[in-house]
Amino acid sequence: MPTEKKFFPLFEKASSNLLETAVLLTKMVNTADAVTRRELLREIERLEHVGDSVTHEIFTELGTTFITPFDREDIHALTSVLDDVVDFIYGSAKRIELYKIQVPESNICKLAELIEKSGEELHKAVLGLRDLKNVESIREACIRINSIENHADDIFENAVARLFENEKDAIEIIKIKEVLSVLETATDKCEDAANVLETIIVKNV
Amino acid sequence: MPTEKKFFPLFEKASSNLLETAVLLTKMVNTADAVTRRELLREIERLEHVGDSVTHEIFTELGTTFITPFDREDIHALTSVLDDVVDFIYGSAKRIELYKIQVPESNICKLAELIEKSGEELHKAVLGLRDLKNVESIREACIRINSIENHADDIFENAVARLFENEKDAIEIIKIKEVLSVLETATDKCEDAANVLETIIVKNV
Amino acid sequence: MPTEKKFFPLFEKASSNLLETAVLLTKMVNTADAVTRRELLREIERLEHVGDSVTHEIFTELGTTFITPFDREDIHALTSVLDDVVDFIYGSAKRIELYKIQVPESNICKLAELIEKSGEELHKAVLGLRDLKNVESIREACIRINSIENHADDIFENAVARLFENEKDAIEIIKIKEVLSVLETATDKCEDAANVLETIIVKNV
Repeated sequence: MPTEKKFFPLFEKASSNLLETAVLLTKMVNTADAVTRRELLREIERLEHVGDSVTHEIFTELGTTFITPFDREDIHALTSVLDDVVDFIYGSAKRIELYKIQVPESNICKLAELIEKSGEELHKAVLGLRDLKNVESIREACIRINSIENHADDIFENAVARLFENEKDAIEIIKIKEVLSVLETATDKCEDAANVLETIIVKNV
Repeated sequence: MPTEKKFFPLFEKASSNLLETAVLLTKMVNTADAVTRRELLREIERLEHVGDSVTHEIFTELGTTFITPFDREDIHALTSVLDDVVDFIYGSAKRIELYKIQVPESNICKLAELIEKSGEELHKAVLGLRDLKNVESIREACIRINSIENHADDIFENAVARLFENEKDAIEIIKIKEVLSVLETATDKCEDAANVLETIIVKNV
Repeated sequence: MPTEKKFFPLFEKASSNLLETAVLLTKMVNTADAVTRRELLREIERLEHVGDSVTHEIFTELGTTFITPFDREDIHALTSVLDDVVDFIYGSAKRIELYKIQVPESNICKLAELIEKSGEELHKAVLGLRDLKNVESIREACIRINSIENHADDIFENAVARLFENEKDAIEIIKIKEVLSVLETATDKCEDAANVLETIIVKNV
């Protein structure tokens, strides 16, 4: 295996770890039982650390490998932003526990599902990096990630508008709005990852 | 026309669309009549879609053109950030309607005006890209955009401080603070665009 | 002195100014006396302007120097993000005064201390740029900055959770949460600076 090929399994480890974290989040926000929910949170935390290790591994590889499959700065950017997505997933899960949010809550569930869908598309796109002959399928995944982000934006904004209409306790509003916002930011970061993937394609086709 | 020249009309379409959106926002936040305001919002939404199309057009052009007038990554960054500005303008307009904010509200109007001024400077700077002989005027536009952003920052912070002093309804504070913050972020994104323009100048002079 | 060497004293001026601002912030948030606190705020504001001048000086140098010690875009990114850190330090100090926050407040003090520690590590790392032979010490500083950011994240999230439990005035929650959030963002920006430093190392070893 040529040394530059070492990066692909690492990228794929990062994106499959991201997807796994997203799947656990969907499970967690649909779990009414507090004990199970805390176990899921601990598992998400564990995967967040796995993500950090992969990130570190890629950066180290980058420092010691002369020939890279893509521009070094794009590898750096892709790795950072995949890490960001996992951070925001973990950040929302943590806040749900810390703020004692009542779950399942319908808009939180919807946003978690969208993050999971984005995670699936991202992982598909990253798998496509090994062989850039099928660029069109990466590009389509990126377009779907963009459209998921638009959808998440709409859900977020409408959820907040409903909150203002129906919830009279300002402190509750602050808490739920914050969780919704962190979830929405996770979809933004997926979009940022898609943009890096598009940059890589633009440069390598 | 050499193929690389195709980019300039597209950049200019993006920045003139941004300016037009900003002009509509200023109109909207000064309109007390709910029906007219909703029409203006729908028009802003339409321009947001126009912006998305131009963004997509530039990215497609980037994927099929061998020689580009500037570094591909800078074209990508400039396009993305001009798109961001329009997204935040639309985001603030949408929230004013969704949260049923009473307009005109003096600080909202002031920030909308600053976004419009930033939009004018951005469009001027983008028009200067065709012929990089007049780099000084681009640089001056960028400096003005930076100073507008500082001004917007001050207005935002003082507006929030006044809100805390005079508004006793926490939910009202959350709503208005959020709108002010999205408006302020639009001026931040204008500054980011100016920074990309400065990077382009630095590399091409 | 070869012209490219001109950049190092400027980088060091930016990072030592950042550190000085952070030291003043720690002092300010530990000062109960309103008059002294306002003097410290004015001094932070002055240093923020000093930071802006250094930023401008580096950008001008970048525009007129042919050979640069690192890639032009990395110099641009490093300069911008060091400027961001100072902006967020000033932003938090300003909000403490504007929102009339009662200080010293234990979590605010803890976050200010972490910013100061990050500032020390950043300044150390920037001093290491002159002679890239000791790359390991720069890398270690970056790792410490990352771990400080994780710590700040935990403090921020727990502080907000405690606020929700103990503070019944929603408006107070909004104010203190905002200050904590700006402080936490300052540590995020330190991490962004560390990431740029890692990029520079990756490219120059």
